[in-house]
Amino acid sequence: MSKKYVEVVVSRSKSVMDYTLEVITLLNQGMDEVKIKGVGREISKAVDVYNSVKDRLGDGVDLVNTEIGTEKGKKTSYIVITIARKY
Amino acid sequence: MSKKYVEVVVSRSKSVMDYTLEVITLLNQGMDEVKIKGVGREISKAVDVYNSVKDRLGDGVDLVNTEIGTEKGKKTSYIVITIARKY
Repeated sequence: MSKKYVEVVVSRSKSVMDYTLEVITLLNQGMDEVKIKGVGREISKAVDVYNSVKDRLGDGVDLVNTEIGTEKGKKTSYIVITIARKY
Repeated sequence: MSKKYVEVVVSRSKSVMDYTLEVITLLNQGMDEVKIKGVGREISKAVDVYNSVKDRLGDGVDLVNTEIGTEKGKKTSYIVITIARKY
């Protein structure tokens, strides 16, 4: 069985709460994994979104992986936080 | 043999390059692991410091672990990036 997953890229235009609701909605719609990505200054916001989702779903969600690195070509840092639905 | 490690907390007052040099110096002084911590808006900067160190030391350094979470009591997010000297 293949896993369904989707990537949410956090930008300046929407709030932490907007992204929190988006991620929770995606998990409720049956996504197995959601990757929360933040680039540059939005890295902090991506972590805020993860904490906000974790706060709300608690044991219903697992932190699968946290990847950090530099975007190819550019010199900007990024983070990709992968979370999974538990039930 | 116990591991020697130290935590560097990234703040607004110093630059990414300052912290990069600090981390590299600590590794050269014989620290086995250095934890780079960033809180709130400084999470992005902590990732920048990691990328800058990785850029300079390449295979000489390993990413051991990336921990994200919320500071107890407060509602601020943090990241702790643990890197290890390889040789």
